Amino acid sequence: MRAVILSIGSELVTGLAMDTHSAEIARALGSLGVAVVRHETLDDDVAEIAVGFVAAAGDADLVIATGGLGPTSDDLTRDGLAQAIGVPLETNPEALAMLEALPNPMGTAPGILARLDKARVFCLPGVPVEMRRMLEDQVLPRIKEPGAGRVARVRTVRTFGSPESVVGERLADLMAPGRRPRVATAVHSGVIDVHIHASGSADEVDRLLEADAAEVKRRLEAVVFGEGADGMEDAVAAILAQRGATLAVAESCTGGLVAARLVDVPGMSEHLVEGIVAYSNASKVRLLGVPKEIIEQHGAVSEPVVRAMAEGVRAASGADVGVAVTGIAGPSGGTPDKPVGTAWFAVTDGAGTHAARELFVGDRATIRARAAVYALNLVRLRLSGGREQDPL
Amino acid sequence: MRAVILSIGSELVTGLAMDTHSAEIARALGSLGVAVVRHETLDDDVAEIAVGFVAAAGDADLVIATGGLGPTSDDLTRDGLAQAIGVPLETNPEALAMLEALPNPMGTAPGILARLDKARVFCLPGVPVEMRRMLEDQVLPRIKEPGAGRVARVRTVRTFGSPESVVGERLADLMAPGRRPRVATAVHSGVIDVHIHASGSADEVDRLLEADAAEVKRRLEAVVFGEGADGMEDAVAAILAQRGATLAVAESCTGGLVAARLVDVPGMSEHLVEGIVAYSNASKVRLLGVPKEIIEQHGAVSEPVVRAMAEGVRAASGADVGVAVTGIAGPSGGTPDKPVGTAWFAVTDGAGTHAARELFVGDRATIRARAAVYALNLVRLRLSGGREQDPL
Repeated sequence: MRAVILSIGSELVTGLAMDTHSAEIARALGSLGVAVVRHETLDDDVAEIAVGFVAAAGDADLVIATGGLGPTSDDLTRDGLAQAIGVPLETNPEALAMLEALPNPMGTAPGILARLDKARVFCLPGVPVEMRRMLEDQVLPRIKEPGAGRVARVRTVRTFGSPESVVGERLADLMAPGRRPRVATAVHSGVIDVHIHASGSADEVDRLLEADAAEVKRRLEAVVFGEGADGMEDAVAAILAQRGATLAVAESCTGGLVAARLVDVPGMSEHLVEGIVAYSNASKVRLLGVPKEIIEQHGAVSEPVVRAMAEGVRAASGADVGVAVTGIAGPSGGTPDKPVGTAWFAVTDGAGTHAARELFVGDRATIRARAAVYALNLVRLRLSGGREQDPL
Repeated sequence: MRAVILSIGSELVTGLAMDTHSAEIARALGSLGVAVVRHETLDDDVAEIAVGFVAAAGDADLVIATGGLGPTSDDLTRDGLAQAIGVPLETNPEALAMLEALPNPMGTAPGILARLDKARVFCLPGVPVEMRRMLEDQVLPRIKEPGAGRVARVRTVRTFGSPESVVGERLADLMAPGRRPRVATAVHSGVIDVHIHASGSADEVDRLLEADAAEVKRRLEAVVFGEGADGMEDAVAAILAQRGATLAVAESCTGGLVAARLVDVPGMSEHLVEGIVAYSNASKVRLLGVPKEIIEQHGAVSEPVVRAMAEGVRAASGADVGVAVTGIAGPSGGTPDKPVGTAWFAVTDGAGTHAARELFVGDRATIRARAAVYALNLVRLRLSGGREQDPL
C-alpha cells in the first residue's frame, strides 16, 4: 500500500507554523508497513487543494490530509475535495453519500472519509490532539497490513564523534545500492544516524534488522551511543545508572544546556548532583575554585581553565565525575588564535582528567548545542572505560 | 513570482526526521514577496525526485530543493534533477553547462543552480547551517521583488501570560473576517502570536503594519513581550540591559533551561552572573542556603523553598535580581496535592519577593519548557515595574 500525506493551511505554506503532523502520520503508517510516497503542504485555496487531491489519488491507494476542516472561511479542505471528486457537494445527494463523516471526540469539526478514483481519502483536523485521536481511532484501524502479514520497519543506530565519510567507509558494503536491507546515513545536529530499512514478514524483518544493527554496532564501536529516538542524554543517563555513578557539570558557553539535556531524562536526581553555570569569570573563581591567575594568564577559554572547572565542580559537589565546557559561541569574542566556535572540554574522575579542544562551525545556537552534545559524549566515553581518545 | 519548495530525504518521508527547512525557506521567500505555492517532501528515489522537479517547474518560477546532495549513495538530488532536465549528466557537456555550482563555505557538498523549463531551480544541502548560509548568500540575493514594487509582509506581536480567548476578545474588531490588514492569532509553546498580514506597496504595507502593531501593543499592555522572532530571553536581555541590572538563576525541575535560554542571547555575560542547577536537595542547602528544615516540612516544591532559592541565589551571587523555579516535571513524583506539572516560581530584588504557583499540562519536556518561559517572564515583569500581578 502506498500513501501520500497532505497538510493544508496557509500558515504552513508561508512558514509561520511548522507541519509536524506529516512526520507523525508517516511514522504511524510506516509501522503498519504502508510506504509513504511523499508529503505535500498546500495553501488554503480550493483549486490547489483539488489538484493536490487528484495528484495524490493518482499516485497512492491512501491519501491522508490534515487541516482546513474548521469553521472559518479559510477552511477549504471540504470544498477542495468536492472539486476533486468533480461534483458540487451541496446540490448532489450522491456526492454527499460518497463522503463519510468521522467522529471527532476532542473537538467540533468532524473528519471525512471519501473515495477518489482508487484511493481512500481521510481528512483530519489540524488541531494536534484532535488529529492524533482521529488517526488512532478512525484511520489506523481501517488500514490493514499490506499483503499477507508483510511489514516495513526501520531500525536506527545513532553515532557521534566520527565524520559521515568515515562512517560511510566502514559501512560501504552494507550501503551498496540494491542491497537488502537498505542502509543509509543521515546527519542531524552533529549526530550521524544509520537507518536500516527492511520489509517482509514480521519475523524475517526483525531478524534482518537485528543482524544488520549488530554488524553496524560492531564496526562503529564506541562511536555508537544509542538506537532509535535515544538522545545522547539517554546514553549518559543509562551508563550513569549502570555504573551507579554521580555527575556534576560546570558550564560556561553552553550556559546550562548540558544540565538541561540531562534533566530531560526522568530520574536524573539520583545521578546529577548539580550544575553550575559559571558564565562570569567571578563565578568560575567563587563557585568552582578556578585560580584567578590562570584565567588572567590563559584566558577563560583554555585548557588550564577547563581542567580547573571540571576538577573544581567534582571536588565541590562530591560527585564521581565532573565535566566542564568553556568556549566562544559568538558572534563576537573570537580571535585569530581562538576563533568563534572554539571550545575546551574536560572530564575528570578519580583516575585522571582528559581535556580536548574542538572547533564548531555555525551560529551561536548551533555551536552551543554541538558543544553540549560533545560534553555529554565525553562523559559517556569516560564511563565506557576511558574511550575518549579512540572511540573508533 | 511563485515558488515550490522541495525537501528530499527518506528520513523525512518516513517521519524519522522533521522537515524544518521548508518553513524557514518559505518565511524568507515571503519576506521578499514571493508567493509559496506548496511544499513537497520526496523520497531518495531518482524517479520520484525527477517527477517532483518537473511538476514544481510547471507550477512555479522558482524551485528550491534541500537535501540529497551529500557524498553517500542515497544522495540522489543531482541525478533526479538530471533526469528531470532529460539528459544524463556525466556524458553530456551541454547538460553540465546548464548547471552552476553554488559555493558551500560551511561544508563540502556544493549547491546547484539550474534552469528547468521556465523555472530557476536551486538545490541546497540538507545540513541546516549549510542550507541557511547558502540560502542567504546565494539564493535570496538572486530573487527580485515581484510585480511593480508590490510586497506581502507579516508582522508578529508576541504575547505570554494571557489565554488566547482573552487576547481574541481584546482584538475582536481587528480580527473580524474581511478586515485589512488581516489579524490572526496562533499559539506555539504557550506563546500567543498575533500575526498582522498586509500587502501592497512597500510604504503602504509598512504604514499599515506599524499602525496595527501599535494598536495591538496598546491593548495587550505588559502581556506583549516582543515582536517577530524575539524569544522571551531576548525580552529579558533587553530589559536587563536597559536597567543595567544583573541576574542570578536557581533552577530545579528546569535543570538549566532558564540559564541556557538567556545565554542564547549574545552578550549576556554582563548581566547573567550565574546559574545554579540545584537538582538535589543537598545542593539546594549547600549552594543556595535553603534551610534543610523547610524542605523537610514543606517539600522541595513549595512556596517557602522557592522563595529561599530565589533569595539565596541573589544573596550568594550579589546579583540585583534572583529568580527560582522548582516543580514536578513528571512522569512520576506527582501527588493529589501537587500533581505532575505543578511548579513554584519566585522572583526577588531589593524591594521584595513575588512567588507564584502554576500547573502546566503536557509531557516532561513540555512542562519544563513552559516553566522556563514562565520564569523568564517573571523577571521581565518584575523589571517592568512589578507587573507580575497584573500584566493586562
